[in-house]
Amino acid sequence: MTPISRFPVPDVLDLPEDLRTRILAVQEKSGFIPNVFLALAHRPAEARAFFDYHDALMEKDGPLTKAEREMIVVATSAANECQYCVVAHGAILRIRAKNPLIADQVAVNYRKADLTDRQKAMLAFALKVSREAQAVGDADFEALHAHGFDDEAIWDIGAIAAFFALSNRMANLTSMRPNGEFYAMGRQPR
Amino acid sequence: MTPISRFPVPDVLDLPEDLRTRILAVQEKSGFIPNVFLALAHRPAEARAFFDYHDALMEKDGPLTKAEREMIVVATSAANECQYCVVAHGAILRIRAKNPLIADQVAVNYRKADLTDRQKAMLAFALKVSREAQAVGDADFEALHAHGFDDEAIWDIGAIAAFFALSNRMANLTSMRPNGEFYAMGRQPR
Amino acid sequence: MTPISRFPVPDVLDLPEDLRTRILAVQEKSGFIPNVFLALAHRPAEARAFFDYHDALMEKDGPLTKAEREMIVVATSAANECQYCVVAHGAILRIRAKNPLIADQVAVNYRKADLTDRQKAMLAFALKVSREAQAVGDADFEALHAHGFDDEAIWDIGAIAAFFALSNRMANLTSMRPNGEFYAMGRQPR
Amino acid sequence: MTPISRFPVPDVLDLPEDLRTRILAVQEKSGFIPNVFLALAHRPAEARAFFDYHDALMEKDGPLTKAEREMIVVATSAANECQYCVVAHGAILRIRAKNPLIADQVAVNYRKADLTDRQKAMLAFALKVSREAQAVGDADFEALHAHGFDDEAIWDIGAIAAFFALSNRMANLTSMRPNGEFYAMGRQPR
Amino acid sequence: MTPISRFPVPDVLDLPEDLRTRILAVQEKSGFIPNVFLALAHRPAEARAFFDYHDALMEKDGPLTKAEREMIVVATSAANECQYCVVAHGAILRIRAKNPLIADQVAVNYRKADLTDRQKAMLAFALKVSREAQAVGDADFEALHAHGFDDEAIWDIGAIAAFFALSNRMANLTSMRPNGEFYAMGRQPR
Amino acid sequence: MTPISRFPVPDVLDLPEDLRTRILAVQEKSGFIPNVFLALAHRPAEARAFFDYHDALMEKDGPLTKAEREMIVVATSAANECQYCVVAHGAILRIRAKNPLIADQVAVNYRKADLTDRQKAMLAFALKVSREAQAVGDADFEALHAHGFDDEAIWDIGAIAAFFALSNRMANLTSMRPNGEFYAMGRQPR
Repeated sequence: MTPISRFPVPDVLDLPEDLRTRILAVQEKSGFIPNVFLALAHRPAEARAFFDYHDALMEKDGPLTKAEREMIVVATSAANECQYCVVAHGAILRIRAKNPLIADQVAVNYRKADLTDRQKAMLAFALKVSREAQAVGDADFEALHAHGFDDEAIWDIGAIAAFFALSNRMANLTSMRPNGEFYAMGRQPR
Repeated sequence: MTPISRFPVPDVLDLPEDLRTRILAVQEKSGFIPNVFLALAHRPAEARAFFDYHDALMEKDGPLTKAEREMIVVATSAANECQYCVVAHGAILRIRAKNPLIADQVAVNYRKADLTDRQKAMLAFALKVSREAQAVGDADFEALHAHGFDDEAIWDIGAIAAFFALSNRMANLTSMRPNGEFYAMGRQPR
Repeated sequence: MTPISRFPVPDVLDLPEDLRTRILAVQEKSGFIPNVFLALAHRPAEARAFFDYHDALMEKDGPLTKAEREMIVVATSAANECQYCVVAHGAILRIRAKNPLIADQVAVNYRKADLTDRQKAMLAFALKVSREAQAVGDADFEALHAHGFDDEAIWDIGAIAAFFALSNRMANLTSMRPNGEFYAMGRQPR
Repeated sequence: MTPISRFPVPDVLDLPEDLRTRILAVQEKSGFIPNVFLALAHRPAEARAFFDYHDALMEKDGPLTKAEREMIVVATSAANECQYCVVAHGAILRIRAKNPLIADQVAVNYRKADLTDRQKAMLAFALKVSREAQAVGDADFEALHAHGFDDEAIWDIGAIAAFFALSNRMANLTSMRPNGEFYAMGRQPR
Repeated sequence: MTPISRFPVPDVLDLPEDLRTRILAVQEKSGFIPNVFLALAHRPAEARAFFDYHDALMEKDGPLTKAEREMIVVATSAANECQYCVVAHGAILRIRAKNPLIADQVAVNYRKADLTDRQKAMLAFALKVSREAQAVGDADFEALHAHGFDDEAIWDIGAIAAFFALSNRMANLTSMRPNGEFYAMGRQPR
Repeated sequence: MTPISRFPVPDVLDLPEDLRTRILAVQEKSGFIPNVFLALAHRPAEARAFFDYHDALMEKDGPLTKAEREMIVVATSAANECQYCVVAHGAILRIRAKNPLIADQVAVNYRKADLTDRQKAMLAFALKVSREAQAVGDADFEALHAHGFDDEAIWDIGAIAAFFALSNRMANLTSMRPNGEFYAMGRQPR
């Protein structure tokens, strides 16, 4: 069977208490342990920081809906050709947006996806942060303000794109394999 | 409802006899008319040549399996960010490969997909034809020979990549929309 | 003598009737058989579709002049470093535009060529379809409308760029060699 | 005076206890507060995770020397045009390597820097992770093994490049300004 | 009539003595004044240095034939989309190589041109200097040594590519227009 | 000790009279001989033209201040990853601008440097000439006119970018090493 990482993968029961508890809680809620937890737990200190960072950006309330945050993940992860993140967060996007088609559309070409102009502007900015953050400037902020995003929302967009710049590279470095469960999740129309 | 093309879309009953017959035969077999037929039928002479070319490459027997030909379509269409081709041919790939996971894997990053080394070499070449055919040379042919592809197989790989270079551009030019049916097709494990 | 293709080249007399007739008619008219006919005739079914598609785009009447269509071919083929298409269609462009300088100008840098602003806008769009069709959108259509191109003309521009995306890749795949006749054709001032 | 971030910057005394303590300890040790602490503390939960992640990668013992880790930071941050990281970590690199010239050399073109072949291989891999992690594969691991890096060292190289992919994007998003102190630090020959 | 430069063009009779003499000598020999002399003479001090540099590289004897040096000019100028240099040096290449086809072949895709493997290696290196000189290293020198180029020949190849990096940019900056005479020169087979 | 060039480096006393005098004058003024003089003097005729060209652009009076001209050198040389030019001209920029921070800022990301909007527009144009001069056109000239640059100033900006396109390639070709003196020069605040 194809391994979930090219690096050693710990047994969840051998992990430090806090990581074990965290991971078992996810398993309880989701019905399975997403492979990213096990693959990154090879380095417990890095893993703790990774999941803390993830949750600080993705689980809080705020100006972006949870579905919109997942759109950013899917669009930038596709640009970075990250199999794990596109497949896993594609599933979450389908569920949070209650839309079985949206993840594939955003992954392939967000310009042709069933999104509002405001959401397309959000993704254009996220991709700019992902691909050439060095060129981000006042004109980009003004374009987003014109769509109703304030500076805190812009931080959210940029920070999610930046965090998944890290995440995509770790997944490609480790050849992280998405769980089979993700592929079909959320594909039933509601 | 979102149109299937930004150009006028003919009614199938108004089409020239040969195109109408061809399209109704597809509908009979598939249960629906893939939008590419209607979107391109706006220009009957071009449409005839397009479908003739497609069938000459994709429907014949030959050294590549039908699933392998669809892998080439999905990999190069993803590189070209072509929503229609990734979604529609992703469905066909899942069915022909009898593998519900393979299309998403190939679309995001074929290097991490569940493929043989021979198939990865095939896709590396297809992507070179798609992205920088000007640099194709003897070394590429030798690399494929080493994997057991003969020159006729190499023509097939290159010609499929070349045909979808055309197809992807037409789909992006026309904002061609994939039928909703394609998204879930072939996702049930066998 | 350098072969005209790295793949086997059929004798015209061995070809299926329809292809033989078609090619002999071209020979009668031009005085020689352009190598593209022989190189692609290695695969008759693909060749038929190729030439049907070509003629549907390049031989019909329409909003673009025949010279303008050849400009699109030369500009996009140069961007794709396709020797056959730049040399052969450069000759046709010189003849159709009755201008011995225009083909070299368009091949090297259309922005500096002796063209109208409308023609430069046409070529800018053709190159966008050729290089990043995924980013084509409403703003591009509006820019062309402002130069007097309607949607049917835009289809023509985009479809020619798309067809030669295919053609350029086939020529580079097969190392297709332009006939010596093309180089000097149309270079005499009128 | 130019602000250190385009977002609001908190007063260190208003920060949550743990961040305040952490930052004051850095100030005590360095003589000043590096601006990254204040700029990112605008979002305390994200800041905690950021600094935890940083320290997990950069402060531990391991197969890479601390100077080598800073080389990775400087090389990848220069590729991402991140002013804060090149200036601040350039200073740290000079100090840790006890070499006043090395940071500028690595920032401009590591291939021409006073490094060992092993260190150049390390930076070539770090830049591949930074720029096209999707293409990382077995051949890259083998090349590093040949230079004596084991898989844990490769994780370190890749993870540092990945973390600064995040860090560089946050610095460019926020227009983070390096402290004036960093520019001249470590430039005295020893 | 289209101007030969977007900047003011001096009358040759108003130029400083040395430039006037130099230019009239070229006119005597060629039958016309190539526009580069007049366009650059707008700045006499820069023009003197430009032509001195050009002659030092292109007119001396040495390990590369004069035709080979012109191949480098044509290949790198085409990559830089420099109309003046491709058209003018294309003419010189045809004459020096006594080959009416070679310039168009090299301009479009040197890999498919009628060249020796040694000449293709020379052009691959010239294009690397032109496009990413920062990555030039020992392996490139070794590859050229294997084709019989010594270090002095390598300097010549690299220096010609470097000089035309300058020249191409000046021609594009000034919209320098090639003389009509160049287009047809050397196209008669010998 | 690391050589200053991968090619033979002449002894200054063996050089032709004019080059020897020129170099000794620089040594007298600067206190040391910048390595570029010795590395390029391997080819006296090319070296003479190089330094004449350099002085014609960099030493004259004109609409750009000497500090602004050095900004162009540093920004474009950093884009070309030229160690010699960034380090040596970075020193000159610090001195001419009387600003110990400006060179590092411009080298890493001029958009975030302590510059006026006019200077940022100047560098944006210089980088366009450096990276894609083929696309320079009327709109670029108009943008610079709006910042108060006239056509002569635009020639200066473009010509400096063009000259260092040459210079950067020669430095990378020869592995030219900056003198140790440059690194710390001008770093003391005034």
